[in-house]
Amino acid sequence: MAAKKEAKKAEENVVLVGKKPTMSYVLAAVTQFSEGNKEVQIKARGKAISRAVDVAEITRKRFVEDAKIKDITIDTEEITTEDGENINVSSITITLAK
Amino acid sequence: MAAKKEAKKAEENVVLVGKKPTMSYVLAAVTQFSEGNKEVQIKARGKAISRAVDVAEITRKRFVEDAKIKDITIDTEEITTEDGENINVSSITITLAK
Repeated sequence: MAAKKEAKKAEENVVLVGKKPTMSYVLAAVTQFSEGNKEVQIKARGKAISRAVDVAEITRKRFVEDAKIKDITIDTEEITTEDGENINVSSITITLAK
Repeated sequence: MAAKKEAKKAEENVVLVGKKPTMSYVLAAVTQFSEGNKEVQIKARGKAISRAVDVAEITRKRFVEDAKIKDITIDTEEITTEDGENINVSSITITLAK
C-alpha cells in the first residue's frame, strides 16, 4: 500500500480518490495545503466521484476554511477493462484553492 | 412510484437523480430539452452523485449534443435520518444548457 501511495503522490497537488475511507483523502488534501500548495485537485472516476465530492466538502468546511472551490469539471474517459473491453467512465476534477 | 415521480416533476427543468437506472434520468433530461427547455439542472445527493455525473455526460455526449455544461456546484446539506439523527450529505447540481 505504501508503494501505491507513493506512486499516486508523484503528481503534485493531486489527490486521486479511490476506494479507501474518505478521511484518508481528506488528510491527503489537507497535507498538500499545509505543505504550502495554494491549489489542490481532487480527482475521481466512476463510483468514487461521490467520495471525491465528500472529500472536497469536508476539506474546505472542516479543515482548510480559507480554501474555495475554484473549478469543477466533469468528463468521460474510455478505459479498457481486464477483459479487453472498452467502457466509458465519468470523471470529476474539483480544484480547491486558497 | 407514479405519484413520487409526479412530485419530483413539480420542479421544472430539474432532474433529481436517485436509485433508478441511469438511463431513466437521461430520458428525463432529454425530454426536458425536447420540450423546449434551454436549461436542465441535474441534482443528486450522497452516493447518487456519481450517477448524476453519468446522466449529464450521457445526455450531452449521446443525445443533446448542442448542450453544454453551464455550471457545476457542490454543497453540503444537513438531513435528518429516520432515527432523528442529523447527518451531513454532499450534493451536486449540474446545469446543462443549449
